[in-house]
Amino acid sequence: MTTTLITNIGSLVTNDPAHGDTPLGLVENAAVVIEGDRIAWVGPQEKAPAADAVHDAQGRAVIPGFVDSHSHLVFAGDRTQEFNARMSGRSYTAGGIRTTVAATRAATDEELEANLVHHLDEALRQGTTTFETKSGYGLTVEDEARALRIAARHTDEVTYLGAHIVSPDYADDPAAYVALVTGEMLDACAPHARWVDVFCEKGAFDGDQARAILTAGKAKGLLPRVHANQLGYGPGVQLAVELEAASADHCTHLTDEDVDALANSSTVATLLPGAEFSTRAQWPDARRLLDAGVTVALSTDCNPGSSFTSSVPFCIALAVRDMGMTPDEAMWAATAGGAQALRREDVGRLAPGAYADLALLDAPSHVHLAYRPGVPLVSAVWRRGVRAA
Amino acid sequence: MTTTLITNIGSLVTNDPAHGDTPLGLVENAAVVIEGDRIAWVGPQEKAPAADAVHDAQGRAVIPGFVDSHSHLVFAGDRTQEFNARMSGRSYTAGGIRTTVAATRAATDEELEANLVHHLDEALRQGTTTFETKSGYGLTVEDEARALRIAARHTDEVTYLGAHIVSPDYADDPAAYVALVTGEMLDACAPHARWVDVFCEKGAFDGDQARAILTAGKAKGLLPRVHANQLGYGPGVQLAVELEAASADHCTHLTDEDVDALANSSTVATLLPGAEFSTRAQWPDARRLLDAGVTVALSTDCNPGSSFTSSVPFCIALAVRDMGMTPDEAMWAATAGGAQALRREDVGRLAPGAYADLALLDAPSHVHLAYRPGVPLVSAVWRRGVRAA
Ligand SMILES: [Zn+2]
Ligand SMILES: [Zn+2]
Repeated sequence: MTTTLITNIGSLVTNDPAHGDTPLGLVENAAVVIEGDRIAWVGPQEKAPAADAVHDAQGRAVIPGFVDSHSHLVFAGDRTQEFNARMSGRSYTAGGIRTTVAATRAATDEELEANLVHHLDEALRQGTTTFETKSGYGLTVEDEARALRIAARHTDEVTYLGAHIVSPDYADDPAAYVALVTGEMLDACAPHARWVDVFCEKGAFDGDQARAILTAGKAKGLLPRVHANQLGYGPGVQLAVELEAASADHCTHLTDEDVDALANSSTVATLLPGAEFSTRAQWPDARRLLDAGVTVALSTDCNPGSSFTSSVPFCIALAVRDMGMTPDEAMWAATAGGAQALRREDVGRLAPGAYADLALLDAPSHVHLAYRPGVPLVSAVWRRGVRAA
Repeated sequence: MTTTLITNIGSLVTNDPAHGDTPLGLVENAAVVIEGDRIAWVGPQEKAPAADAVHDAQGRAVIPGFVDSHSHLVFAGDRTQEFNARMSGRSYTAGGIRTTVAATRAATDEELEANLVHHLDEALRQGTTTFETKSGYGLTVEDEARALRIAARHTDEVTYLGAHIVSPDYADDPAAYVALVTGEMLDACAPHARWVDVFCEKGAFDGDQARAILTAGKAKGLLPRVHANQLGYGPGVQLAVELEAASADHCTHLTDEDVDALANSSTVATLLPGAEFSTRAQWPDARRLLDAGVTVALSTDCNPGSSFTSSVPFCIALAVRDMGMTPDEAMWAATAGGAQALRREDVGRLAPGAYADLALLDAPSHVHLAYRPGVPLVSAVWRRGVRAA
């Protein structure tokens, strides 16, 4: 197998506790050897073994590729006018998520896939090498299954979110929609997904409905994750912990009991500051979670309604400014944290055996991701050992 | 002269009131013809004249290149550790601006110029085609003059800011420093600059000192602009209006009298949200200024201490979320507003005779600059008619 040496790395984030004395596992003046699609060696550059090819990082920083564990990228249409009206203080009869459902149902497979690929490429150029994405804009058996089939061509991390909202077709009979989501729709979707998710929130699915949906998904071999406590207090986080979900996502409105439950669980709290930014909502309190010992991940929630950003660096900058995370904590959360939220050990860190997914920054340190907000600092990306951007 | 036709533009921002009925002068399904370094023609694509070369915008949006009328890019060193400590809640004996002054004085001409070019290129890739930049990290006759000489090789918009802070060498005798700034230093600097600026703020220069500095600069043919009312109320804005400054920059803390003065003047209020973002400070109230009839510009304030972003799109997203600007107002402020803050009519708009400075977005509308925060949406840039990124 071909080997590539990346050398003259001014500052390397490994997320490997074998290096240094912080969770980031920082190595200064470092080198990395890639063999095939994996990391073969990490260490001080003067000890690096020879390789077939050499890339000079010129003293800049290298980080693990971002692990974006929460996005909604199988959709059609956009919601520019709705966003523009909201931000301009103009009234607008917004269809909200239903606008996207209608556009997604009306789109061809080719249109949906082209849009997905467009956004995945955009994310990759910004350093994201592992993407989770979901269904949830189809809300029929056929449309949900097709969203997952399309997503599964492009990522291993595919989530069945038939329970995004109650389908408008079932507005008068939510129970029948839950029966569909846990029955025929689940049967059609389970073969194409790894995860099952539910939007557990007032106006979407209550605790009992969410438990039924996640439990049915688990019975079909899917692993649970939950949209929880975004818009208000509720049972989502406790349910996520009860069902040993990999992640409770959003976590904006938490009681002390919710925080305790997370701290005493294997469930990651995935924070999605792009949503609070784009909807002018209250920030999740990352500091409170971290101080309680909760594992925190940072992701984009990229979707056309409430968070149309694919930029993990932007989320890092927000987390540092407004959510009480240090630059180091935000860096970890956007890489190793995302990996943990997907129960993955082969991504989110740079250690022998892990996938060779890494980003070269046009900056001497990962701290610049927060220090230089909005600036596209990712100057090269390797994914599975291949130069991808 | 060679002509280039950019056609199939889904949405074109011209900032030319000849088009449409809003200040943005939007044209749908538009085309632009570039001749040499200027715009030769703008209109509906079906009426476009033939040209030597054709670029297909594929239905995406084209906007005027950003006019970043406020940056501090002649510096050396960075302040990563200071930023990291501040954002991590750790105490740190920060040298602040003095750290940058020491590093800048110690740098060679070549180092300063390479750093400037690095940041100008970075800004250009993000759509900024007109840059103002300043001295202010030298604070000696020699170091200020050399900063301006270096800047003048790369932009016409060069500002003498010997009055950034009182030089540490004159800590015991600020009056002597003002005498230097208005005397020998001004004589050395005026030939290389277009503008004179002063940081009029508690802890820097008071109203009388600022008036003396700006008046001396005017007497040498420099045009005034003022760092005003960033950290607290003060005389800066009133002084800017009194001296017919092109711009009062920051404008975060304003009395009703300050707003009135701006509204009844030709002085632009240049807002710099990157500074408030990076220092967790109160946002300037753009809505109040706009409702009073003040002309508003948006710029980055790019500098290594308080706002190390070169991203105008990031500033637009902040202005829309947190400062009460509509996406249209923010778009105008970052282009035509910046031009007005530099008293320029040949940039910041796309109309026959103006410079062919424009950016193609990977988006159907300029609204996406706010709708998709943090995403690098600028996919091509022409500057002076030449494809530059
Ligand atoms: Zn979501
Ligand atoms: Zn400034």
